[in-house]
Amino acid sequence: MTIAVKTLANAVRALSMDAVEAAKSGHPGMPMGMADVATVLFTRYLKHDPAAPDWADRDRFVLSAGHGSMLIYSLLHLTGYARPTIEDIRNFRKLGSPCAGHPENFELAGVEATTGPLGTGLATAVGMAIAERHLNATFGDGLVDHRTWVIAGDGCLMEGINHEAVGLAGHLGLGRMVVLWDDNRITIDGAVDLSSSEDVLGRYAASGWHTLACDGHDPDDIARAIDEAVADPRPSIVACRTIIGFGAPSKQGTSATHGSPLGADEVAAARVALGWTAEPFVIPDDIAAAWAAAGTRGREAWTAWNERLAADPQAAEFIRRMKGELPQGFSLAAHIDGLIAEPKTVATRVSSQMALDAVNALLPETVGGSADLTGSNNTRTKGLAPFTRDDRAGRYLYYGIREFGMGCAMNGMALHGGVIPYSGTFLCFADFVRPAIRLAALQRIRSIFVMTHDSIGLGEDGPTHQPIEHLMSLRVIPNLDVWRPADAVEAAEAWELSLSRVDGPSLLALTRQNLRQLRTEKGENLSARGAYRLKAAEAKRRVILIASGSEVEIALDVASRLEAEGVGADVVSMPCWSRFDAQPKSYRDDVLPPVDPSEVLRVSIEAGTTMGWERYTMVDGMRFGIDRFGASAPAPDLYRYFGLTAETIAPQLLGAVRTA
Amino acid sequence: MTIAVKTLANAVRALSMDAVEAAKSGHPGMPMGMADVATVLFTRYLKHDPAAPDWADRDRFVLSAGHGSMLIYSLLHLTGYARPTIEDIRNFRKLGSPCAGHPENFELAGVEATTGPLGTGLATAVGMAIAERHLNATFGDGLVDHRTWVIAGDGCLMEGINHEAVGLAGHLGLGRMVVLWDDNRITIDGAVDLSSSEDVLGRYAASGWHTLACDGHDPDDIARAIDEAVADPRPSIVACRTIIGFGAPSKQGTSATHGSPLGADEVAAARVALGWTAEPFVIPDDIAAAWAAAGTRGREAWTAWNERLAADPQAAEFIRRMKGELPQGFSLAAHIDGLIAEPKTVATRVSSQMALDAVNALLPETVGGSADLTGSNNTRTKGLAPFTRDDRAGRYLYYGIREFGMGCAMNGMALHGGVIPYSGTFLCFADFVRPAIRLAALQRIRSIFVMTHDSIGLGEDGPTHQPIEHLMSLRVIPNLDVWRPADAVEAAEAWELSLSRVDGPSLLALTRQNLRQLRTEKGENLSARGAYRLKAAEAKRRVILIASGSEVEIALDVASRLEAEGVGADVVSMPCWSRFDAQPKSYRDDVLPPVDPSEVLRVSIEAGTTMGWERYTMVDGMRFGIDRFGASAPAPDLYRYFGLTAETIAPQLLGAVRTA
Repeated sequence: MTIAVKTLANAVRALSMDAVEAAKSGHPGMPMGMADVATVLFTRYLKHDPAAPDWADRDRFVLSAGHGSMLIYSLLHLTGYARPTIEDIRNFRKLGSPCAGHPENFELAGVEATTGPLGTGLATAVGMAIAERHLNATFGDGLVDHRTWVIAGDGCLMEGINHEAVGLAGHLGLGRMVVLWDDNRITIDGAVDLSSSEDVLGRYAASGWHTLACDGHDPDDIARAIDEAVADPRPSIVACRTIIGFGAPSKQGTSATHGSPLGADEVAAARVALGWTAEPFVIPDDIAAAWAAAGTRGREAWTAWNERLAADPQAAEFIRRMKGELPQGFSLAAHIDGLIAEPKTVATRVSSQMALDAVNALLPETVGGSADLTGSNNTRTKGLAPFTRDDRAGRYLYYGIREFGMGCAMNGMALHGGVIPYSGTFLCFADFVRPAIRLAALQRIRSIFVMTHDSIGLGEDGPTHQPIEHLMSLRVIPNLDVWRPADAVEAAEAWELSLSRVDGPSLLALTRQNLRQLRTEKGENLSARGAYRLKAAEAKRRVILIASGSEVEIALDVASRLEAEGVGADVVSMPCWSRFDAQPKSYRDDVLPPVDPSEVLRVSIEAGTTMGWERYTMVDGMRFGIDRFGASAPAPDLYRYFGLTAETIAPQLLGAVRTA
Repeated sequence: MTIAVKTLANAVRALSMDAVEAAKSGHPGMPMGMADVATVLFTRYLKHDPAAPDWADRDRFVLSAGHGSMLIYSLLHLTGYARPTIEDIRNFRKLGSPCAGHPENFELAGVEATTGPLGTGLATAVGMAIAERHLNATFGDGLVDHRTWVIAGDGCLMEGINHEAVGLAGHLGLGRMVVLWDDNRITIDGAVDLSSSEDVLGRYAASGWHTLACDGHDPDDIARAIDEAVADPRPSIVACRTIIGFGAPSKQGTSATHGSPLGADEVAAARVALGWTAEPFVIPDDIAAAWAAAGTRGREAWTAWNERLAADPQAAEFIRRMKGELPQGFSLAAHIDGLIAEPKTVATRVSSQMALDAVNALLPETVGGSADLTGSNNTRTKGLAPFTRDDRAGRYLYYGIREFGMGCAMNGMALHGGVIPYSGTFLCFADFVRPAIRLAALQRIRSIFVMTHDSIGLGEDGPTHQPIEHLMSLRVIPNLDVWRPADAVEAAEAWELSLSRVDGPSLLALTRQNLRQLRTEKGENLSARGAYRLKAAEAKRRVILIASGSEVEIALDVASRLEAEGVGADVVSMPCWSRFDAQPKSYRDDVLPPVDPSEVLRVSIEAGTTMGWERYTMVDGMRFGIDRFGASAPAPDLYRYFGLTAETIAPQLLGAVRTA
């Protein structure tokens, strides 16, 4: 017996409204409104195998309107994923349940991306679609040949990030991406026309998308639209005309269904309206069986794919890349040995490019890029061809002036797997990328953010372009490694460590201006410790100078002046706070001995905000930095103006030590 | 004798290329490319009076493509503004010159907004256009009747913020806004079609804009287009087809002219090509005179306007609002007295709304709003009608799901003057608004950001919505006051202080969950000190608990438990770090006495990152907070899970004090 799509969809509606009711919080409107569309997608189109959720060639599905999380939880449960169980769904939004308020990629297989911040899911999907085509070009149709599906709401489309994502996908012609827009004409504040008069499809068409519409409650029309979308070579957006909260008789079509439980009476009325007689959290056997059968649709394709993989000469390499493992013995030691042999005085953005020359030769899975600052970020290395509409094998993306879209696309590539994305902008514009950086950290993925022009050292461009608070504001993001290398060796070490890290993103803050090479001896990767003693006091130690990046050479100059006066000074280079904080106490106490400040004065030097440095200098220490906005002038003038020179700092320290 | 527009424009080109050459850095391409367009605008259309740059009814001109700063410096100088002088221009990009790398509103009258971060200028102009129509509705055509002009580049249009700005302006029908797009088909990385295939005008049209094009080097065609733009009731965008670096014979039309000096040879060749024979920084007398004459075009209108102002019964009120002065004796004391008389246990987002009820009645100049979270941010008060296409007198904006666009629009309103903008979103989405918050701080303007749902206290929505690092990441922004009130009284105090502040923005972090009212005695505005002793130790003081917002009541509970064990504990409420840091040392030392940690243990409690709290707890203190991402669960469960309860904290402090 065939169960009607509407009936299958009602299982989604029932689970969604019941789970929200039990949690006493959540968003029933979207899952109920999009249940028909999602049911058609999951029972007839989505290529997946719930028994093999890590199948590399599965379609990727992103619920960009993440607040409608019960939609995906229902779909995963009904199609037979091991989790969520019905118990997980009963515990929706409770501590320990993988069914969190918004879908989290690390909680459930089948949740391809963490969504909730509106618009980011769709923009992330763009990266997945890029990765798919790139890997397809590398490994062929036999191994990589899948689609990227997105369900997005009005919020996703109104956010600025949408423009960047749409522009990028349209320009790159990512035809295997299909966006199903929940066109319900409702936002939280009320009707969409309270705040928008946009012809959404007109805008998408202006960026080269295929646009079409369907009745989001008519399964045949939904299928017709999806067929057309799949057939078109352009990325497609389908405006699915829906009624938010479909089935809740007195509330449907209003924002009242968006973000609150319907209430017991309305849920009861909805059951009547939908003809759904089962108890909460109970799916009638025939309906459950029909869903389970739909969940096995992909098994045959999965089997065939595995047979192709087994026969493929590139199988081992494909598996390695999809696992995110670096080639055996990956190391930048040879490159670093070269630097030791021939020290370089270059900007760390150039050091980074030199490291990337080695990296990109060793790791075919890197995909670089820049938000229209290729020559400034130094992210394109020799022989890296652009990824374009016509050359999917290219490994470099001209992202355009789309920093946030770039960040989300990188996350999508990392989530898809098989590639390691890195890309650049100016550090000051980390503010534009910030929500994507946070999502990379939250999702525990290897996106590598290259941020050049990392201080007033960029000079004349002035305060709008000079990072002041940025380093510190990034260091407070959980699970993000923020690197600020002091020379070419540390830059290479930071790259090695960022690439080797599989459970989170890294960000490299790099200078525009030249820095002399401070590390000139062969040895281990000292940056791995986060901070280390670069120079030990010669005279009796009275001062420990802690610095990062371009200020480490200033610290060394300060130390020389102090030593000349008989005051011993250590210099600690601290390229990465989070790595240092993760060291054993014995190591940390060795680098920063816990002695009385009157005996050993701790001093930080960094061309950025001093707030936060108390952690290492202690309150009684001294902090040299910049606690106001910058200014427009040549870099050396600015360093003098802000007092960040050895000539200015050394006398202050001598004074402090002598009066201590 | 009439000087041709092309000749006038060549004065802009010459100054621009010469200044960049002298500075050895800068962006000649845009000023040279847009010189003709800008000359037509400034000599024939822009309503301004260089002798009265603070004329309230002047047109506003925003150079959104701020890297082309020499364009505006040239125009201001040539039309007769007191600054920049030719000496200022000679010192372009040098320390102390008001001619900074990017235009800064606080450096020069006539620079209406600080620009450089691409796209933000245009989005800021949207706010100016809103303020203009709103004040027009209030004060009539006689006092307020001007236009908002923008010059924008491809970067401005490609950024996500552009979508939000365009959507808002189109929806609101801001017909007095005209964008002149420097359609030069070049970005830094090369041709625009390297990264974009967008039909830009098609996209604008989809949002209800009037779109047209002109030859950006044909003065008559430019004027024709501007005439059409002005005549149309919709906001207009004019695609000005230009050649970047126009006049530099071997480099024009390429990205080589964008961001570097042309070089002496090319400058010399450009002089020949343009027929410009004057020495660097010299403007021939006839040309200077023609420019100066153009600069007096507005004098008559200015005189007439002043006569109207003098005769206007609302003159005093208009002047007060445009000066940004609050009404004499503005205070929320009556509201606070009411709270003292009848304490309220409510969320601080509700406290904020109660304060706003009073504020909006006292201050007709406030314009509120929310990015589609009106009911959650509690930003709309009784009787506040929406500002719409049909009702310009409305004082509430439904911004839609456009956080960044909202922030920029607020900045534009504040820059325009005459209104005080405030608006809301969730604190977690401060990340989306962040570049606008920074620009408000840099521009020293009174934008007030309401950010609710300020911690894990929001509960079930989970990690994507729970701020962790946000408070700290905002506190490091220079010149931003970050408020986190602990109860209804502090919320009112924070509003009073934010409104009274004229030299920078404020941000209020507010809870979703209820908090009991802790302040129950009449008295001064204690929040003005940034931090204060809310409760003094009863037993001998061994502990100082420092907390903000929702954790202050936890601190009080901890203190009770300590006192019950004979351990004296102060509780310090610290709603605003920057205000506390600005207090005299004597006050700071009174609140946080500089005594040995073994005598008095300092403890911070805040439901966010602990990094940074060392500033007040000292390294030897204890910091209770959350240094990882949040989780999805009811708020009380989360507070327990993260150990932020009196039951969990008090025993740890007792242990520490007893072993000290």
